[in-house]
Amino acid sequence: MQERIKRQMDFLREIDKLKIIGRQNYLADGSRKEDDAEHSWHLALCALVLQEYMPDPVNVSRTVELVLVHDLVEIWAGDAYAYDIQAQAAQHEKEVKAAEKLFGMLPEDQRTYFQELWEEFEGCKTAEARFARVMDNCQPLLLNDASGGKSWREHGISQEQVYRRNEKVRRWAPEIWAYMESLIQKNVELGNLKK
Amino acid sequence: MQERIKRQMDFLREIDKLKIIGRQNYLADGSRKEDDAEHSWHLALCALVLQEYMPDPVNVSRTVELVLVHDLVEIWAGDAYAYDIQAQAAQHEKEVKAAEKLFGMLPEDQRTYFQELWEEFEGCKTAEARFARVMDNCQPLLLNDASGGKSWREHGISQEQVYRRNEKVRRWAPEIWAYMESLIQKNVELGNLKK
Repeated sequence: MQERIKRQMDFLREIDKLKIIGRQNYLADGSRKEDDAEHSWHLALCALVLQEYMPDPVNVSRTVELVLVHDLVEIWAGDAYAYDIQAQAAQHEKEVKAAEKLFGMLPEDQRTYFQELWEEFEGCKTAEARFARVMDNCQPLLLNDASGGKSWREHGISQEQVYRRNEKVRRWAPEIWAYMESLIQKNVELGNLKK
Repeated sequence: MQERIKRQMDFLREIDKLKIIGRQNYLADGSRKEDDAEHSWHLALCALVLQEYMPDPVNVSRTVELVLVHDLVEIWAGDAYAYDIQAQAAQHEKEVKAAEKLFGMLPEDQRTYFQELWEEFEGCKTAEARFARVMDNCQPLLLNDASGGKSWREHGISQEQVYRRNEKVRRWAPEIWAYMESLIQKNVELGNLKK
């Protein structure tokens, strides 16, 4: 038993590192970039607030768990910027190894539980994972808009790239998409996104 | 409908500010202090991993929601350091007003839902709220230990203060307490906590 709680506490100490994994998008106030732990927390809140817009019934608690856990592997694999296609391609293999190492710190039953959460998010096949993915796409868009498109401008991102990136939002959550599309249009007009 | 989603998105943009509310404890690596959004995310992960140590059956999903939401009022009320007794006393009134203002941004049904989550956490009467409170006490202790007692040393905190602060952990989750007590003892021996 003491061995078990020790492993659990070691894991909880290790995942503290998610707070120093940086992301490309800025906070809403543009003061600094966001980190992965903040992002994961924000996604969970988005899920609690926006569940009604998913056409299929969703177990929101499961989606909350998916988003809380989905970026943990980046502790060892790092973050690949959403619009960096090359980095994205190499990312998956790195993440598979990271998951094995990180979740392997936990007792076997919990290792399986966390591994399944991560794979469900990655696989995008359940209603809960689709909802999680929609949140994961929308939240940076919301922050990019709020910060005056700061990260888009830094990377010279185009309207078309954002459309492609958010294809799943359009397909899976049309009402959320309608709102997000209005933000995209506004930022094209403001010159924050290239045409 | 458009009015509804607009209010929800405004709320989700507003709560981004939780990421700039600072806390007193350091990250595990001691590199900088933690913010409220990171703390909330970490508590949710602690709840997912440590649920088995609560003597009564607990609805973990509810506890996860409680910890994700419990600090939101600090966006307008600020954080009161756990060992600053004067600040703590004035804090509750400020937070009640902040809750009214912040959750009032949401549509009525969701305002009620979030208000109830916050009040449940504050009231500490349900098994889920007690579990949330235990996590809220243990996580800073875990980080304080990991960072070599950095925040304890800065504030000249004593063993007795930590014991008093974590009284609920001892009472509500004896097995977690046993682990935490070993950390406290280690830090007393190391001189990170005053006797």
